[in-house]
Amino acid sequence: MSNAEALLPILEPEAPAAVAPCCPPLTERPLTAEEAAGTAKMFKALGDPVRLRLFSLVASHEGGEACVCDISDVGVSQPTVSHHLKKLKEAGLLTSERRGTWVYYRVEPSVLAAMGRLLTSATGA
Amino acid sequence: MSNAEALLPILEPEAPAAVAPCCPPLTERPLTAEEAAGTAKMFKALGDPVRLRLFSLVASHEGGEACVCDISDVGVSQPTVSHHLKKLKEAGLLTSERRGTWVYYRVEPSVLAAMGRLLTSATGA
Repeated sequence: MSNAEALLPILEPEAPAAVAPCCPPLTERPLTAEEAAGTAKMFKALGDPVRLRLFSLVASHEGGEACVCDISDVGVSQPTVSHHLKKLKEAGLLTSERRGTWVYYRVEPSVLAAMGRLLTSATGA
Repeated sequence: MSNAEALLPILEPEAPAAVAPCCPPLTERPLTAEEAAGTAKMFKALGDPVRLRLFSLVASHEGGEACVCDISDVGVSQPTVSHHLKKLKEAGLLTSERRGTWVYYRVEPSVLAAMGRLLTSATGA
């Protein structure tokens, strides 16, 4: 390994989502109690209008990520925005990374895909 | 019209869902406050483990519908099951129809599809 390589910052892989996405489409078979417990947490996190807007702001933001500094028009204070983003992270819907002053949030695409699949009709309707 | 036809029961169309499903994928653009308010109600209704199991029981039940009489293994009483089914109906996720003694619940496929679309990555990931 050259000295240059040794000096490159090592990017750690992102921590896995707190809650693993799961489960076949809801139309396919009933969820078990365990599956429902984990999945309900994610739905609950999106069950607040402000949190849902923040989630959509991050999900649709340029580059697929956003920090509190990018979000100013949801009608709540920056600490409240931070609080909600933390809740979304705890539910496994967002991952975060600190860069300098700001923490950047990113939607976990695999989680989004799994939740979408859950709500897809098994018949493709 | 023959007499036989006249005697056939008239099936009324199902009442429209209480909350209209809406919105493009969350990755496409941020939701407006109004869009988020209606959609958050649906996510909130699925944000309880027992309700989510009940919803999956109805969604995956033979014929796409179920009554309280079909549901016995979620660990809560029949009145509690009825209460949760009513909440899911109020959120626009289920429709219901009384037939004799029982009320039958059915998943609103257009709502399920709209929620699935919402959680689909715009890039198809």
